[in-house]
Amino acid sequence: MKPRSPSPFTLGVIQMRMQPDIAVNLAHALSLLDAAAAKGVQVVLLPELFNAQYFCQKLDPAYMDIAEPIPGKTTDVLAAKAKQHNMVIIAPLYERAAAGLYYNSAAVLDADGTLKGVYRKMHIPHDPLFEEKYYFAPGDTGFMAFDTRYGRIGVLICWDQWFPEAARATALLGADVLLYPTAIGWHPSEKAAFGADQVTAWRTAQRAHAIASGVYVAAANRIGHEIISGDGLEFFGHSFVYDPFGRELASLDEHAEGVLTALIDPRAIEDTRRNWPFRRDRRVDAYQGLLKK
Amino acid sequence: MKPRSPSPFTLGVIQMRMQPDIAVNLAHALSLLDAAAAKGVQVVLLPELFNAQYFCQKLDPAYMDIAEPIPGKTTDVLAAKAKQHNMVIIAPLYERAAAGLYYNSAAVLDADGTLKGVYRKMHIPHDPLFEEKYYFAPGDTGFMAFDTRYGRIGVLICWDQWFPEAARATALLGADVLLYPTAIGWHPSEKAAFGADQVTAWRTAQRAHAIASGVYVAAANRIGHEIISGDGLEFFGHSFVYDPFGRELASLDEHAEGVLTALIDPRAIEDTRRNWPFRRDRRVDAYQGLLKK
Repeated sequence: MKPRSPSPFTLGVIQMRMQPDIAVNLAHALSLLDAAAAKGVQVVLLPELFNAQYFCQKLDPAYMDIAEPIPGKTTDVLAAKAKQHNMVIIAPLYERAAAGLYYNSAAVLDADGTLKGVYRKMHIPHDPLFEEKYYFAPGDTGFMAFDTRYGRIGVLICWDQWFPEAARATALLGADVLLYPTAIGWHPSEKAAFGADQVTAWRTAQRAHAIASGVYVAAANRIGHEIISGDGLEFFGHSFVYDPFGRELASLDEHAEGVLTALIDPRAIEDTRRNWPFRRDRRVDAYQGLLKK
Repeated sequence: MKPRSPSPFTLGVIQMRMQPDIAVNLAHALSLLDAAAAKGVQVVLLPELFNAQYFCQKLDPAYMDIAEPIPGKTTDVLAAKAKQHNMVIIAPLYERAAAGLYYNSAAVLDADGTLKGVYRKMHIPHDPLFEEKYYFAPGDTGFMAFDTRYGRIGVLICWDQWFPEAARATALLGADVLLYPTAIGWHPSEKAAFGADQVTAWRTAQRAHAIASGVYVAAANRIGHEIISGDGLEFFGHSFVYDPFGRELASLDEHAEGVLTALIDPRAIEDTRRNWPFRRDRRVDAYQGLLKK
Protein backbone atom coordinates (compact mmCIF):
# COMPACT_ATOMS: atom_id res chain seq x y z
CA MET A 1 0.00 0.00 0.00
CA LYS A 2 1.37 3.38 -1.02
CA PRO A 3 1.60 6.20 1.51
CA ARG A 4 -1.66 8.06 1.79
CA SER A 5 -2.04 10.91 -0.68
CA PRO A 6 -1.44 14.15 1.20
CA SER A 7 -3.76 16.24 -0.95
CA PRO A 8 -7.53 16.54 -1.07
CA PHE A 9 -9.22 16.03 -4.41
CA THR A 10 -12.62 16.76 -5.89
CA LEU A 11 -14.93 13.83 -6.52
CA GLY A 12 -17.74 13.96 -9.03
CA VAL A 13 -20.74 11.60 -9.08
CA ILE A 14 -22.88 11.44 -12.19
CA GLN A 15 -26.58 10.63 -11.99
CA MET A 16 -28.13 10.12 -15.41
CA ARG A 17 -31.04 8.76 -17.42
CA MET A 18 -30.39 6.05 -20.04
CA GLN A 19 -31.93 5.64 -23.50
CA PRO A 20 -32.24 2.46 -25.58
CA ASP A 21 -29.39 3.55 -27.88
CA ILE A 22 -25.85 2.81 -26.65
CA ALA A 23 -24.27 5.59 -28.74
CA VAL A 24 -26.73 8.12 -27.35
CA ASN A 25 -25.85 7.12 -23.80
CA LEU A 26 -22.14 7.38 -24.46
CA ALA A 27 -22.53 10.82 -25.99
CA HIS A 28 -24.67 11.92 -23.07
CA ALA A 29 -22.12 10.60 -20.58
CA LEU A 30 -19.34 12.46 -22.39
CA SER A 31 -21.26 15.71 -22.08
CA LEU A 32 -21.76 15.06 -18.36
CA LEU A 33 -18.05 14.33 -18.02
CA ASP A 34 -17.34 17.69 -19.65
CA ALA A 35 -19.72 19.29 -17.15
CA ALA A 36 -17.88 17.54 -14.32
CA ALA A 37 -14.53 18.80 -15.59
CA ALA A 38 -15.94 22.32 -15.75
CA LYS A 39 -16.76 21.99 -12.04
CA GLY A 40 -13.17 21.06 -11.24
CA VAL A 41 -13.85 17.36 -10.73
CA GLN A 42 -10.68 15.24 -10.60
CA VAL A 43 -12.17 11.78 -10.03
CA VAL A 44 -15.57 10.99 -11.56
CA LEU A 45 -17.97 8.11 -11.15
CA LEU A 46 -20.49 7.00 -13.78
CA PRO A 47 -23.50 4.77 -12.94
CA GLU A 48 -23.45 1.00 -13.36
CA LEU A 49 -23.67 -0.19 -17.01
CA PHE A 50 -23.80 3.49 -17.92
CA ASN A 51 -24.08 3.03 -21.67
CA ALA A 52 -27.14 0.76 -21.67
CA GLN A 53 -30.64 0.48 -20.35
CA TYR A 54 -30.94 -2.09 -17.60
CA PHE A 55 -31.45 -5.13 -19.81
CA CYS A 56 -31.37 -7.62 -16.91
CA GLN A 57 -35.14 -7.23 -16.58
CA LYS A 58 -35.51 -10.24 -18.85
CA LEU A 59 -33.46 -13.10 -20.28
CA ASP A 60 -32.36 -12.49 -23.83
CA PRO A 61 -28.93 -13.60 -25.07
CA ALA A 62 -29.00 -10.85 -27.67
CA TYR A 63 -28.22 -8.36 -24.91
CA MET A 64 -24.86 -10.04 -24.53
CA ASP A 65 -23.88 -8.20 -27.71
CA ILE A 66 -23.65 -5.10 -25.52
CA ALA A 67 -20.65 -6.61 -23.77
CA GLU A 68 -17.24 -5.50 -25.00
CA PRO A 69 -13.64 -6.14 -24.07
CA ILE A 70 -11.78 -3.87 -21.66
CA PRO A 71 -9.77 -2.16 -23.05
CA GLY A 72 -12.10 -1.70 -25.97
CA LYS A 73 -13.90 0.90 -28.02
CA THR A 74 -15.76 2.52 -25.13
CA THR A 75 -12.79 2.67 -22.78
CA ASP A 76 -10.75 4.11 -25.67
CA VAL A 77 -13.20 6.98 -25.98
CA LEU A 78 -13.27 7.50 -22.23
CA ALA A 79 -9.49 7.31 -21.95
CA ALA A 80 -9.24 10.20 -24.40
CA LYS A 81 -11.75 12.12 -22.30
CA ALA A 82 -9.79 11.36 -19.13
CA LYS A 83 -6.60 12.64 -20.73
CA GLN A 84 -8.33 15.72 -22.13
CA HIS A 85 -9.55 16.75 -18.68
CA ASN A 86 -6.78 15.24 -16.53
CA MET A 87 -9.60 13.41 -14.80
CA VAL A 88 -9.80 9.89 -13.36
CA ILE A 89 -12.92 8.16 -14.76
CA ILE A 90 -14.64 5.14 -13.23
CA ALA A 91 -16.45 3.55 -16.19
CA PRO A 92 -18.88 0.70 -15.39
CA LEU A 93 -19.38 -1.51 -18.43
CA TYR A 94 -20.72 -4.88 -19.48
CA GLU A 95 -17.41 -6.68 -20.05
CA ARG A 96 -16.81 -9.49 -22.51
CA ALA A 97 -13.94 -11.64 -21.24
CA ALA A 98 -14.51 -14.51 -23.68
CA ALA A 99 -17.36 -16.03 -25.65
CA GLY A 100 -19.90 -16.98 -22.98
CA LEU A 101 -17.99 -15.30 -20.16
CA TYR A 102 -19.20 -11.84 -19.24
CA TYR A 103 -18.78 -9.65 -16.18
CA ASN A 104 -20.43 -6.62 -14.65
CA SER A 105 -17.27 -4.53 -14.45
CA ALA A 106 -15.84 -1.10 -13.78
CA ALA A 107 -12.80 0.15 -15.66
CA VAL A 108 -10.62 2.67 -13.86
CA LEU A 109 -8.99 5.16 -16.24
CA ASP A 110 -6.27 7.27 -14.71
CA ALA A 111 -6.00 10.98 -15.36
CA ASP A 112 -3.56 10.44 -18.24
CA GLY A 113 -5.91 7.98 -19.92
CA THR A 114 -4.07 4.87 -18.79
CA LEU A 115 -6.27 1.88 -17.96
CA LYS A 116 -5.40 1.47 -14.29
CA GLY A 117 -7.36 -1.73 -13.85
CA VAL A 118 -10.75 -3.41 -13.86
CA TYR A 119 -12.95 -4.44 -10.95
CA ARG A 120 -15.49 -7.18 -11.60
CA LYS A 121 -18.63 -7.12 -9.44
CA MET A 122 -18.22 -9.79 -6.79
CA HIS A 123 -21.81 -10.07 -5.48
CA ILE A 124 -24.38 -10.79 -8.18
CA PRO A 125 -28.10 -10.36 -7.44
CA HIS A 126 -30.95 -12.36 -8.88
CA ASP A 127 -34.40 -11.04 -8.14
CA PRO A 128 -37.48 -10.38 -10.23
CA LEU A 129 -36.39 -7.97 -13.01
CA PHE A 130 -32.80 -8.04 -11.70
CA GLU A 131 -31.77 -11.33 -13.33
CA GLU A 132 -28.06 -10.65 -13.19
CA LYS A 133 -26.90 -14.21 -12.55
CA TYR A 134 -27.90 -14.94 -16.13
CA TYR A 135 -25.77 -12.18 -17.62
CA PHE A 136 -22.77 -11.89 -15.31
CA ALA A 137 -20.32 -14.36 -13.85
CA PRO A 138 -19.44 -13.50 -10.25
CA GLY A 139 -16.31 -11.37 -10.24
CA ASP A 140 -12.93 -13.08 -10.04
CA THR A 141 -10.88 -10.00 -9.15
CA GLY A 142 -11.46 -9.95 -5.42
CA PHE A 143 -11.80 -6.54 -3.79
CA MET A 144 -9.64 -3.79 -5.22
CA ALA A 145 -8.27 -0.32 -4.58
CA PHE A 146 -6.59 1.68 -7.34
CA ASP A 147 -3.76 4.16 -6.93
CA THR A 148 -4.81 6.96 -9.22
CA ARG A 149 -3.14 10.30 -9.72
CA TYR A 150 -5.34 11.96 -7.12
CA GLY A 151 -5.95 9.30 -4.50
CA ARG A 152 -6.47 5.67 -3.69
CA ILE A 153 -9.92 4.65 -4.92
CA GLY A 154 -11.99 1.65 -3.90
CA VAL A 155 -14.50 0.48 -6.50
CA LEU A 156 -17.47 -1.78 -5.83
CA ILE A 157 -20.67 -2.22 -7.83
CA CYS A 158 -24.33 -2.02 -6.80
CA TRP A 159 -25.32 -5.27 -5.02
CA ASP A 160 -21.88 -5.22 -3.37
CA GLN A 161 -23.16 -2.26 -1.38
CA TRP A 162 -25.33 -4.46 0.85
CA PHE A 163 -22.36 -6.49 2.06
CA PRO A 164 -20.37 -4.94 4.91
CA GLU A 165 -17.64 -7.47 4.17
CA ALA A 166 -17.03 -5.93 0.74
CA ALA A 167 -16.84 -2.38 2.09
CA ARG A 168 -14.54 -3.37 4.92
CA ALA A 169 -12.25 -5.48 2.76
CA THR A 170 -11.90 -2.62 0.27
CA ALA A 171 -11.32 -0.03 2.99
CA LEU A 172 -8.64 -2.27 4.49
CA LEU A 173 -6.81 -2.03 1.16
CA GLY A 174 -6.30 1.64 1.95
CA ALA A 175 -9.03 3.28 -0.12
CA ASP A 176 -9.85 6.88 0.72
CA VAL A 177 -13.25 6.55 -0.87
CA LEU A 178 -15.56 3.68 -1.79
CA LEU A 179 -17.35 4.28 -5.09
CA TYR A 180 -20.54 2.39 -5.92
CA PRO A 181 -21.84 2.63 -9.47
CA THR A 182 -25.43 1.47 -9.14
CA ALA A 183 -28.65 0.60 -10.95
CA ILE A 184 -31.33 0.30 -8.28
CA GLY A 185 -34.98 1.08 -8.67
CA TRP A 186 -38.50 0.51 -7.56
CA HIS A 187 -40.88 -2.10 -8.83
CA PRO A 188 -43.81 0.21 -9.60
CA SER A 189 -46.23 -2.07 -7.74
CA GLU A 190 -44.11 -1.89 -4.56
CA LYS A 191 -43.26 1.77 -4.64
CA ALA A 192 -46.14 3.12 -2.58
CA ALA A 193 -45.73 0.62 0.24
CA PHE A 194 -41.97 0.18 0.34
CA GLY A 195 -40.32 2.79 -1.89
CA ALA A 196 -39.27 5.30 0.73
CA ASP A 197 -38.03 2.59 3.10
CA GLN A 198 -36.04 0.99 0.29
CA VAL A 199 -34.22 4.24 -0.42
CA THR A 200 -33.57 4.74 3.28
CA ALA A 201 -32.24 1.20 3.66
CA TRP A 202 -30.05 1.60 0.59
CA ARG A 203 -28.55 4.83 1.84
CA THR A 204 -28.23 3.64 5.44
CA ALA A 205 -26.31 0.52 4.48
CA GLN A 206 -23.68 2.56 2.64
CA ARG A 207 -23.61 5.42 5.12
CA ALA A 208 -22.73 2.81 7.73
CA HIS A 209 -19.78 1.65 5.63
CA ALA A 210 -18.44 5.21 5.82
CA ILE A 211 -18.86 5.26 9.60
CA ALA A 212 -17.52 1.77 10.27
CA SER A 213 -14.38 2.21 8.19
CA GLY A 214 -13.85 5.98 8.37
CA VAL A 215 -13.89 6.43 4.59
CA TYR A 216 -15.79 8.55 2.13
CA VAL A 217 -18.57 6.64 0.36
CA ALA A 218 -20.39 7.64 -2.81
CA ALA A 219 -22.96 6.03 -5.09
CA ALA A 220 -23.98 6.96 -8.63
CA ASN A 221 -27.43 5.66 -9.51
CA ARG A 222 -29.49 6.06 -12.66
CA ILE A 223 -32.97 7.60 -12.96
CA GLY A 224 -35.91 6.99 -15.25
CA HIS A 225 -38.59 4.39 -15.83
CA GLU A 226 -37.15 1.69 -18.10
CA ILE A 227 -39.68 -0.85 -19.32
CA ILE A 228 -38.01 -3.94 -20.74
CA SER A 229 -40.23 -6.46 -18.98
CA GLY A 230 -43.60 -6.18 -17.24
CA ASP A 231 -44.08 -2.83 -15.53
CA GLY A 232 -40.34 -2.18 -15.73
CA LEU A 233 -38.25 -0.50 -13.09
CA GLU A 234 -38.28 3.09 -11.86
CA PHE A 235 -34.64 3.78 -11.07
CA PHE A 236 -34.63 5.88 -7.96
CA GLY A 237 -31.54 8.05 -8.18
CA HIS A 238 -30.73 9.46 -4.73
CA SER A 239 -27.03 9.37 -5.54
CA PHE A 240 -24.95 10.68 -2.63
CA VAL A 241 -21.59 11.32 -1.01
CA TYR A 242 -21.02 10.67 2.72
CA ASP A 243 -17.94 11.75 4.66
CA PRO A 244 -15.97 9.40 6.99
CA PHE A 245 -18.22 10.38 9.93
CA GLY A 246 -21.34 9.53 7.92
CA ARG A 247 -22.38 13.12 7.24
CA GLU A 248 -24.05 13.78 3.90
CA LEU A 249 -21.94 16.04 1.70
CA ALA A 250 -24.07 16.00 -1.44
CA SER A 251 -27.14 14.23 -2.79
CA LEU A 252 -29.80 14.21 -5.46
CA ASP A 253 -33.43 13.06 -5.60
CA GLU A 254 -35.07 10.63 -8.07
CA HIS A 255 -35.84 13.30 -10.68
CA ALA A 256 -32.66 15.20 -11.52
CA GLU A 257 -29.73 14.31 -13.70
CA GLY A 258 -26.52 15.98 -12.69
CA VAL A 259 -23.01 15.93 -11.27
CA LEU A 260 -22.57 15.88 -7.51
CA THR A 261 -19.25 17.17 -6.22
CA ALA A 262 -17.50 16.77 -2.88
CA LEU A 263 -14.01 17.27 -1.53
CA ILE A 264 -12.25 14.05 -0.49
CA ASP A 265 -9.78 15.03 2.23
CA PRO A 266 -7.33 12.42 3.55
CA ARG A 267 -6.81 14.57 6.64
CA ALA A 268 -10.49 14.22 7.56
CA ILE A 269 -10.09 10.44 7.33
CA GLU A 270 -7.12 10.57 9.67
CA ASP A 271 -8.95 12.77 12.20
CA THR A 272 -12.16 10.77 12.11
CA ARG A 273 -10.33 7.52 12.74
CA ARG A 274 -8.36 9.00 15.65
CA ASN A 275 -11.59 10.01 17.34
CA TRP A 276 -13.27 6.67 16.72
CA PRO A 277 -10.35 4.25 16.39
CA PHE A 278 -12.22 1.16 15.28
CA ARG A 279 -9.32 -0.11 13.22
CA ARG A 280 -7.18 -0.45 16.36
CA ASP A 281 -9.74 -2.66 18.10
CA ARG A 282 -10.84 -5.12 15.42
CA ARG A 283 -10.80 -8.70 16.75
CA VAL A 284 -9.26 -10.35 13.73
CA ASP A 285 -8.73 -13.46 15.85
CA ALA A 286 -12.49 -13.91 16.12
CA TYR A 287 -13.88 -13.29 12.65
CA GLN A 288 -13.46 -16.77 11.15
CA GLY A 289 -17.23 -17.23 11.19
CA LEU A 290 -17.48 -14.64 8.41
CA LEU A 291 -15.87 -17.09 6.01
CA LYS A 292 -18.89 -19.40 6.19
CA LYS A 293 -22.32 -19.04 4.66
CA MET B 1 -28.43 -24.30 15.24
CA LYS B 2 -31.96 -25.08 16.39
CA PRO B 3 -34.89 -24.59 14.06
CA ARG B 4 -36.12 -21.03 14.13
CA SER B 5 -38.72 -20.35 16.78
CA PRO B 6 -42.10 -20.21 15.07
CA SER B 7 -43.59 -17.70 17.48
CA PRO B 8 -43.20 -13.95 17.80
CA PHE B 9 -42.21 -12.58 21.19
CA THR B 10 -42.21 -9.19 22.88
CA LEU B 11 -38.86 -7.51 23.43
CA GLY B 12 -38.34 -4.88 26.11
CA VAL B 13 -35.47 -2.38 26.15
CA ILE B 14 -34.75 -0.48 29.36
CA GLN B 15 -33.27 3.01 29.27
CA MET B 16 -32.32 4.23 32.75
CA ARG B 17 -30.33 6.70 34.81
CA MET B 18 -27.67 5.41 37.22
CA GLN B 19 -26.81 6.63 40.73
CA PRO B 20 -23.53 6.23 42.63
CA ASP B 21 -25.02 3.50 44.86
CA ILE B 22 -25.02 -0.05 43.42
CA ALA B 23 -27.94 -1.21 45.57
CA VAL B 24 -30.04 1.75 44.47
CA ASN B 25 -29.39 0.93 40.80
CA LEU B 26 -30.31 -2.72 41.30
CA ALA B 27 -33.54 -1.79 43.06
CA HIS B 28 -34.36 0.70 40.32
CA ALA B 29 -33.67 -1.90 37.63
CA LEU B 30 -35.93 -4.39 39.42
CA SER B 31 -38.77 -1.88 39.38
CA LEU B 32 -38.22 -1.29 35.65
CA LEU B 33 -38.22 -5.06 35.09
CA ASP B 34 -41.57 -5.21 36.90
CA ALA B 35 -42.82 -2.45 34.59
CA ALA B 36 -41.58 -4.40 31.58
CA ALA B 37 -43.38 -7.53 32.75
CA ALA B 38 -46.56 -5.51 33.21
CA LYS B 39 -46.27 -4.54 29.54
CA GLY B 40 -46.06 -8.19 28.49
CA VAL B 41 -42.33 -8.17 27.80
CA GLN B 42 -40.85 -11.66 27.37
CA VAL B 43 -37.20 -10.80 26.68
CA VAL B 44 -35.72 -7.72 28.33
CA LEU B 45 -32.45 -5.87 27.88
CA LEU B 46 -30.77 -3.75 30.56
CA PRO B 47 -28.07 -1.17 29.73
CA GLU B 48 -24.35 -1.94 29.93
CA LEU B 49 -22.96 -2.16 33.49
CA PHE B 50 -26.50 -1.40 34.64
CA ASN B 51 -25.81 -1.44 38.37
CA ALA B 52 -23.02 1.15 38.40
CA GLN B 53 -22.16 4.61 37.23
CA TYR B 54 -19.70 4.60 34.34
CA PHE B 55 -16.52 4.40 36.39
CA CYS B 56 -14.23 4.04 33.35
CA GLN B 57 -13.94 7.83 33.24
CA LYS B 58 -10.78 7.49 35.35
CA LEU B 59 -8.30 4.87 36.50
CA ASP B 60 -8.93 3.70 40.04
CA PRO B 61 -8.43 0.04 41.00
CA ALA B 62 -11.00 0.46 43.79
CA TYR B 63 -13.71 0.32 41.12
CA MET B 64 -12.71 -3.26 40.46
CA ASP B 65 -14.55 -4.07 43.70
CA ILE B 66 -17.75 -3.59 41.69
CA ALA B 67 -16.91 -6.72 39.69
CA GLU B 68 -18.58 -9.93 40.82
CA PRO B 69 -18.66 -13.53 39.68
CA ILE B 70 -21.36 -14.79 37.32
CA PRO B 71 -23.36 -16.52 38.68
CA GLY B 72 -23.23 -14.34 41.77
CA LYS B 73 -25.34 -12.22 44.04
CA THR B 74 -26.70 -9.91 41.36
CA THR B 75 -27.53 -12.65 38.87
CA ASP B 76 -29.19 -14.57 41.74
CA VAL B 77 -31.53 -11.66 42.35
CA LEU B 78 -32.21 -11.25 38.64
CA ALA B 79 -32.75 -14.99 38.17
CA ALA B 80 -35.51 -14.85 40.77
CA LYS B 81 -37.03 -11.91 38.92
CA ALA B 82 -36.80 -13.77 35.60
CA LYS B 83 -38.57 -16.76 37.11
CA GLN B 84 -41.21 -14.59 38.77
CA HIS B 85 -42.16 -12.98 35.46
CA ASN B 86 -41.30 -15.87 33.07
CA MET B 87 -39.05 -13.32 31.40
CA VAL B 88 -35.64 -13.68 29.77
CA ILE B 89 -33.29 -11.04 31.22
CA ILE B 90 -30.07 -9.80 29.60
CA ALA B 91 -28.03 -8.50 32.54
CA PRO B 92 -24.83 -6.59 31.70
CA LEU B 93 -22.40 -6.68 34.62
CA TYR B 94 -18.80 -6.06 35.53
CA GLU B 95 -17.63 -9.67 35.83
CA ARG B 96 -14.86 -10.92 38.08
CA ALA B 97 -13.34 -14.08 36.55
CA ALA B 98 -10.30 -14.19 38.83
CA ALA B 99 -8.19 -11.79 40.85
CA GLY B 100 -6.90 -9.31 38.28
CA LEU B 101 -9.05 -10.71 35.44
CA TYR B 102 -12.25 -8.82 34.80
CA TYR B 103 -14.64 -8.65 31.86
CA ASN B 104 -17.38 -6.36 30.61
CA SER B 105 -20.04 -9.06 30.36
CA ALA B 106 -23.70 -9.81 29.84
CA ALA B 107 -25.40 -12.68 31.64
CA VAL B 108 -28.37 -14.25 29.88
CA LEU B 109 -31.00 -15.52 32.31
CA ASP B 110 -33.67 -17.71 30.78
CA ALA B 111 -37.34 -17.36 31.63
CA ASP B 112 -37.12 -20.02 34.35
CA GLY B 113 -34.18 -18.25 36.01
CA THR B 114 -31.51 -20.57 34.58
CA LEU B 115 -28.23 -18.91 33.69
CA LYS B 116 -28.15 -19.63 29.97
CA GLY B 117 -24.66 -18.25 29.43
CA VAL B 118 -22.39 -15.24 29.50
CA TYR B 119 -21.10 -13.09 26.66
CA ARG B 120 -17.89 -11.13 27.28
CA LYS B 121 -17.47 -7.91 25.28
CA MET B 122 -15.06 -8.65 22.47
CA HIS B 123 -14.18 -5.11 21.33
CA ILE B 124 -12.86 -2.87 24.10
CA PRO B 125 -12.62 0.90 23.58
CA HIS B 126 -10.05 3.23 25.05
CA ASP B 127 -10.71 6.90 24.56
CA PRO B 128 -10.69 9.92 26.84
CA LEU B 129 -13.14 9.13 29.71
CA PHE B 130 -13.80 5.67 28.20
CA GLU B 131 -10.68 3.96 29.57
CA GLU B 132 -12.05 0.46 29.28
CA LYS B 133 -8.82 -1.31 28.37
CA TYR B 134 -7.73 -0.68 31.96
CA TYR B 135 -10.77 -2.34 33.49
CA PHE B 136 -11.73 -5.09 31.06
CA ALA B 137 -9.84 -7.86 29.35
CA PRO B 138 -11.02 -8.34 25.75
CA GLY B 139 -13.71 -11.03 25.71
CA ASP B 140 -12.68 -14.63 25.24
CA THR B 141 -16.12 -16.02 24.42
CA GLY B 142 -16.24 -15.20 20.74
CA PHE B 143 -19.61 -14.16 19.34
CA MET B 144 -22.64 -15.86 20.82
CA ALA B 145 -26.33 -16.53 20.31
CA PHE B 146 -28.48 -17.98 23.09
CA ASP B 147 -31.47 -20.27 22.69
CA THR B 148 -33.90 -18.87 25.20
CA ARG B 149 -37.46 -19.91 25.83
CA TYR B 150 -38.83 -17.31 23.41
CA GLY B 151 -36.20 -17.03 20.71
CA ARG B 152 -32.58 -17.14 19.70
CA ILE B 153 -30.88 -14.02 21.04
CA GLY B 154 -27.59 -12.48 19.96
CA VAL B 155 -25.86 -10.39 22.60
CA LEU B 156 -23.11 -7.85 21.95
CA ILE B 157 -21.98 -4.92 24.07
CA CYS B 158 -21.55 -1.23 23.24
CA TRP B 159 -18.24 -0.74 21.32
CA ASP B 160 -19.03 -4.01 19.50
CA GLN B 161 -21.80 -2.09 17.76
CA TRP B 162 -19.33 -0.23 15.51
CA PHE B 163 -17.96 -3.45 14.04
CA PRO B 164 -19.98 -4.94 11.19
CA GLU B 165 -17.97 -8.13 11.64
CA ALA B 166 -19.44 -8.65 15.12
CA ALA B 167 -23.02 -8.11 13.99
CA ARG B 168 -22.63 -10.37 10.97
CA ALA B 169 -20.88 -13.14 12.90
CA THR B 170 -23.63 -13.11 15.53
CA ALA B 171 -26.41 -13.02 12.95
CA LEU B 172 -24.80 -15.98 11.17
CA LEU B 173 -25.21 -17.93 14.42
CA GLY B 174 -28.95 -17.70 13.81
CA ALA B 175 -29.93 -14.86 16.12
CA ASP B 176 -33.37 -13.34 15.55
CA VAL B 177 -32.32 -10.15 17.29
CA LEU B 178 -29.03 -8.48 18.16
CA LEU B 179 -29.11 -6.81 21.57
CA TYR B 180 -26.62 -4.08 22.44
CA PRO B 181 -26.45 -2.96 26.07
CA THR B 182 -24.65 0.36 25.85
CA ALA B 183 -23.09 3.26 27.76
CA ILE B 184 -22.42 5.97 25.24
CA GLY B 185 -22.49 9.69 25.85
CA TRP B 186 -21.32 13.11 24.86
CA HIS B 187 -18.23 14.87 26.11
CA PRO B 188 -19.93 18.12 27.16
CA SER B 189 -17.32 20.17 25.31
CA GLU B 190 -18.05 18.33 22.02
CA LYS B 191 -21.80 18.17 22.30
CA ALA B 192 -22.69 21.37 20.47
CA ALA B 193 -20.45 20.68 17.48
CA PHE B 194 -20.74 16.91 17.17
CA GLY B 195 -23.49 15.65 19.46
CA ALA B 196 -26.28 15.22 16.94
CA ASP B 197 -23.98 13.66 14.35
CA GLN B 198 -22.64 11.24 16.96
CA VAL B 199 -26.14 10.02 17.77
CA THR B 200 -26.93 9.69 14.07
CA ALA B 201 -23.72 7.76 13.40
CA TRP B 202 -24.38 5.50 16.38
CA ARG B 203 -27.90 4.71 15.24
CA THR B 204 -26.97 4.39 11.59
CA ALA B 205 -24.20 1.87 12.26
CA GLN B 206 -26.62 -0.44 14.07
CA ARG B 207 -29.56 0.17 11.77
CA ALA B 208 -27.29 -1.02 8.97
CA HIS B 209 -26.60 -4.25 10.85
CA ALA B 210 -30.35 -4.90 10.81
CA ILE B 211 -30.52 -4.26 7.06
CA ALA B 212 -27.37 -6.17 6.12
CA SER B 213 -28.30 -9.30 8.06
CA GLY B 214 -32.10 -9.11 8.08
CA VAL B 215 -32.34 -9.23 11.87
CA TYR B 216 -33.95 -7.11 14.54
CA VAL B 217 -31.46 -4.85 16.34
CA ALA B 218 -31.96 -3.07 19.65
CA ALA B 219 -29.78 -0.99 21.94
CA ALA B 220 -30.33 -0.02 25.59
CA ASN B 221 -28.36 3.07 26.57
CA ARG B 222 -28.22 4.99 29.85
CA ILE B 223 -29.04 8.66 30.38
CA GLY B 224 -27.79 11.28 32.79
CA HIS B 225 -24.70 13.40 33.35
CA GLU B 226 -22.22 11.35 35.39
CA ILE B 227 -19.18 13.29 36.59
CA ILE B 228 -16.41 10.99 37.72
CA SER B 229 -13.59 12.82 35.95
CA GLY B 230 -13.34 16.30 34.40
CA ASP B 231 -16.62 17.48 32.93
CA GLY B 232 -17.94 13.92 32.97
CA LEU B 233 -20.11 12.33 30.33
CA GLU B 234 -23.69 13.09 29.31
CA PHE B 235 -25.09 9.70 28.37
CA PHE B 236 -27.30 10.26 25.40
CA GLY B 237 -30.01 7.63 25.59
CA HIS B 238 -31.71 7.30 22.20
CA SER B 239 -32.28 3.60 22.79
CA PHE B 240 -34.09 1.98 19.88
CA VAL B 241 -35.43 -1.10 18.14
CA TYR B 242 -35.07 -1.57 14.35
CA ASP B 243 -36.79 -4.26 12.32
CA PRO B 244 -34.99 -6.50 9.75
CA PHE B 245 -35.68 -3.93 7.02
CA GLY B 246 -34.16 -1.14 9.14
CA ARG B 247 -37.45 0.49 10.07
CA GLU B 248 -37.63 2.06 13.51
CA LEU B 249 -40.14 0.27 15.74
CA ALA B 250 -39.54 2.17 18.97
CA SER B 251 -37.16 4.77 20.36
CA LEU B 252 -36.52 7.23 23.17
CA ASP B 253 -34.69 10.56 23.42
CA GLU B 254 -31.89 11.56 25.81
CA HIS B 255 -34.21 12.65 28.62
CA ALA B 256 -36.64 9.84 29.42
CA GLU B 257 -36.22 6.67 31.37
CA GLY B 258 -38.50 3.89 30.31
CA VAL B 259 -39.20 0.53 28.72
CA LEU B 260 -39.40 0.30 24.93
CA THR B 261 -41.35 -2.63 23.56
CA ALA B 262 -41.45 -4.23 20.12
CA LEU B 263 -42.66 -7.48 18.62
CA ILE B 264 -39.90 -9.74 17.30
CA ASP B 265 -41.44 -11.81 14.52
CA PRO B 266 -39.42 -14.62 12.92
CA ARG B 267 -41.79 -14.55 9.95
CA ALA B 268 -40.78 -10.94 9.21
CA ILE B 269 -37.15 -12.05 9.19
CA GLU B 270 -37.96 -14.79 6.71
CA ASP B 271 -39.89 -12.43 4.44
CA THR B 272 -37.30 -9.67 4.54
CA ARG B 273 -34.49 -12.02 3.64
CA ARG B 274 -36.46 -13.51 0.75
CA ASN B 275 -36.93 -10.05 -0.72
CA TRP B 276 -33.30 -9.07 -0.24
CA PRO B 277 -31.46 -12.39 -0.21
CA PHE B 278 -28.01 -11.19 0.81
CA ARG B 279 -27.22 -14.41 2.63
CA ARG B 280 -27.42 -16.36 -0.61
CA ASP B 281 -24.87 -14.18 -2.34
CA ARG B 282 -22.13 -13.69 0.24
CA ARG B 283 -18.69 -14.31 -1.33
CA VAL B 284 -17.20 -16.30 1.52
CA ASP B 285 -14.35 -17.29 -0.79
CA ALA B 286 -13.21 -13.66 -0.92
CA TYR B 287 -13.39 -12.40 2.66
CA GLN B 288 -9.99 -13.54 3.92
CA GLY B 289 -8.82 -9.91 4.04
CA LEU B 290 -11.18 -9.37 6.98
CA LEU B 291 -8.96 -11.55 9.14
CA LYS B 292 -6.12 -9.01 8.97
CA LYS B 293 -5.77 -5.67 10.71
